[in-house]
Amino acid sequence: MGIKDILEKVLRKDQISTSESELYRHSRDESSHDPVLPDVVCFPESTEDIQQILHIANEQAVAVTAYGFGSGLEGQVIPMEKGISLNLERMNQVIEFSPEDMTVTVEPGITRTMLNEKINKYGLQFPIDPGADATIGGMAATNASGTTAVRYGSMRDCILDLEVVLADGRVIHTGTKAKKTSSGYSLTGLFTGSEGTLGIITKITLKLFGIPEYLIAARCTFPTVEECAEGAYAVLANDISITRMELVDDTSIKTVNAYGDYTFPEQHSLFFEFAGTKDTVDAQVAVVKELMEDIGCDNWAVATTTKERHELWRARHEMAYAFQHQQGISYFITDVCVPISKLSVIIHYTRELMDGYHIHGGILGHVGDGNFHTFLTFEKENEEEKSKVLEVTEKIARKAIELGGTCTGEHGVGIGKKAFQRQEHGDAVDVMKSMKQVLDPSNILNPGKIFM
Amino acid sequence: MGIKDILEKVLRKDQISTSESELYRHSRDESSHDPVLPDVVCFPESTEDIQQILHIANEQAVAVTAYGFGSGLEGQVIPMEKGISLNLERMNQVIEFSPEDMTVTVEPGITRTMLNEKINKYGLQFPIDPGADATIGGMAATNASGTTAVRYGSMRDCILDLEVVLADGRVIHTGTKAKKTSSGYSLTGLFTGSEGTLGIITKITLKLFGIPEYLIAARCTFPTVEECAEGAYAVLANDISITRMELVDDTSIKTVNAYGDYTFPEQHSLFFEFAGTKDTVDAQVAVVKELMEDIGCDNWAVATTTKERHELWRARHEMAYAFQHQQGISYFITDVCVPISKLSVIIHYTRELMDGYHIHGGILGHVGDGNFHTFLTFEKENEEEKSKVLEVTEKIARKAIELGGTCTGEHGVGIGKKAFQRQEHGDAVDVMKSMKQVLDPSNILNPGKIFM
Repeated sequence: MGIKDILEKVLRKDQISTSESELYRHSRDESSHDPVLPDVVCFPESTEDIQQILHIANEQAVAVTAYGFGSGLEGQVIPMEKGISLNLERMNQVIEFSPEDMTVTVEPGITRTMLNEKINKYGLQFPIDPGADATIGGMAATNASGTTAVRYGSMRDCILDLEVVLADGRVIHTGTKAKKTSSGYSLTGLFTGSEGTLGIITKITLKLFGIPEYLIAARCTFPTVEECAEGAYAVLANDISITRMELVDDTSIKTVNAYGDYTFPEQHSLFFEFAGTKDTVDAQVAVVKELMEDIGCDNWAVATTTKERHELWRARHEMAYAFQHQQGISYFITDVCVPISKLSVIIHYTRELMDGYHIHGGILGHVGDGNFHTFLTFEKENEEEKSKVLEVTEKIARKAIELGGTCTGEHGVGIGKKAFQRQEHGDAVDVMKSMKQVLDPSNILNPGKIFM
Repeated sequence: MGIKDILEKVLRKDQISTSESELYRHSRDESSHDPVLPDVVCFPESTEDIQQILHIANEQAVAVTAYGFGSGLEGQVIPMEKGISLNLERMNQVIEFSPEDMTVTVEPGITRTMLNEKINKYGLQFPIDPGADATIGGMAATNASGTTAVRYGSMRDCILDLEVVLADGRVIHTGTKAKKTSSGYSLTGLFTGSEGTLGIITKITLKLFGIPEYLIAARCTFPTVEECAEGAYAVLANDISITRMELVDDTSIKTVNAYGDYTFPEQHSLFFEFAGTKDTVDAQVAVVKELMEDIGCDNWAVATTTKERHELWRARHEMAYAFQHQQGISYFITDVCVPISKLSVIIHYTRELMDGYHIHGGILGHVGDGNFHTFLTFEKENEEEKSKVLEVTEKIARKAIELGGTCTGEHGVGIGKKAFQRQEHGDAVDVMKSMKQVLDPSNILNPGKIFM
């Protein structure tokens, strides 16, 4: 009896698929990692469904890989050892919304846009913004963040409680609905970012934030990347609670101008977003303008209307597309994060590598966090170019670790960053492995990820 | 050969003490939990010393309990199974200070005041403020926070990396110096708040924050605790980055007026602190004043000068002393944290309990976090009164958990909150225990804490 037949004992037929198109959809994510087809795709509708599936998977020694929206960038959803792809899209409900507590409990398959649509009318938002319309479950599993991390942190900072089904079918809660806790070991932080290797997340309680009544975007340019980093530091050191602060290098600006018909000054740029009440925002903008001018910025421009602001940030978001959506082009994205003082060092290193290897690409940075991405493009199916790009991503990751940073600031380890875990974490890798061993002794949960 | 003789093989004589006064000092903390004398006190001076001590402890099956400043409130430093008290006061150095990264790496024995003295001149601060001048190691071990958590979070939010000596002597690093990471399992969060039961923290890398150029304190009163909670909610919902926001109930105000010769209006009060540049702070104060007046506050008062501001916050800090430092009086402090919407419910419940049991005490709350403390006093050596107080602390803790909260928001589990772990965490307690088992199979690290 095949795994599909066994699953049919506990799930309805429409919760199980082995159609070619579904197997293909669940074989890959947004990255260029090689796809692997699962044997079967399941569509659980409840925590109980997942318990049943994991019981079967344990009995049959079949791998289970959770799937959210497929927008990951390190192959976390690719079922390396085939088996079951666990698609959580039907578990997409808001379970409990407490505006007065500024918390919401959701199922993992809800996307951040769906969630915000439901809560924005109460003046509340979930502001973590990884760019793609990822599911909250996927964002929790990878500890995602994005442009707003400088203000709101990463997923781990915004999760109060997780309901998790463990490999053996036990269901636990990792936290409570209280904002702070010193009770017991922090399992919330441990399961967040564990990429489906320690358990399947079935509910997530999130901190929410007020929607600021007033927003302003601004940008300026500097002759060098060092001065951009200096500018970012000045904002942080003055304890200004900026909501976004992004570095875009000159090459990236040129690319987006060409792609999107923009006319940004083609120099290294900082993009800012300020949020709050009108008075506090106006005061912040004035302070930041002065700080930037002290360092020697050019082209300070403020977008006060909603239209201008959207325009400016749309351009920033289109940077990614400008590199990605070119005919016949594939790409890998680096995601290193370093201490702020090392940012200009590693950006220079990266740009020199790209030039040396003749790789076209751009650098976009969440500069307030020391996190930046390099888009490294290659011609589709060109194995030689692809291997050059992979060589460069490796060099950048190892350099970041040497500089006291990490190989991944927000995308997670998945497949692409496994090779750097020992360099980055040393013997702590063995501690991590011992937790995996204790919680999933048969290694059924997303095998082949995080660890070599 | 006794444990002292064995320790003398690896430590100098002045690093080992069995003097009565040292044993006494290491038998207790600031709480009223029963003291237990260790067999011996060690004063390690390096990570290597601690590795040696743990090797001996493992061989001899002797308990090791870390000791920072002794300011804990749940008996974490009390050596329940005697053995070795590991006093970290000689490991109190700044190892690496990177103002440009806004990070610092310190040894565990440095206190937060010592640390701030070294870094304030660079315009930077470590703002977590639990009240006492605790060590950074102790604060990390209990995931401490305090009045500034509403702005800066708890220790777990501010730690980038820990160096930890595991029970078997291995030394690991749990993170990096980068501000964000999605690499591997979050061991930083796991060891933070583990109260010396999973390993001994030997280095801590902290996020630092800019010292705001301008501060304003303010206060107002409301007829009911519900309106205080409503006021706090309005501040949070408007995304105003306040640095402190404290609830003090009418009884506590009366007590501090009597104790400190203050003349605060004797009603339920909110205390605020705003920080930033002068313009942003002035704007924030104006917004909050308007929000409070909309809800119906009385007695809005602003302290603009440093002297007035210190006066106002000194009064808040003296609340604790007003209850504690009365001749012949002991006390227990509750530390529950609930969803904000449940705050007035549990505060009423608490006040009714105190009245019903005829217990004198006060309620002080980190209202922005839903965390509050009840000082429950009893006559020293009066076992009947003490057991009444313990009964009330139990009822408050269990009520908080029922309301979706936690038995401890910032003090930790130690001895006093062990009994509530199963109610709060359910089967997750077994997951926690399995991690303890895997990392400390002989249970030498702070036995008798966290778990029953």
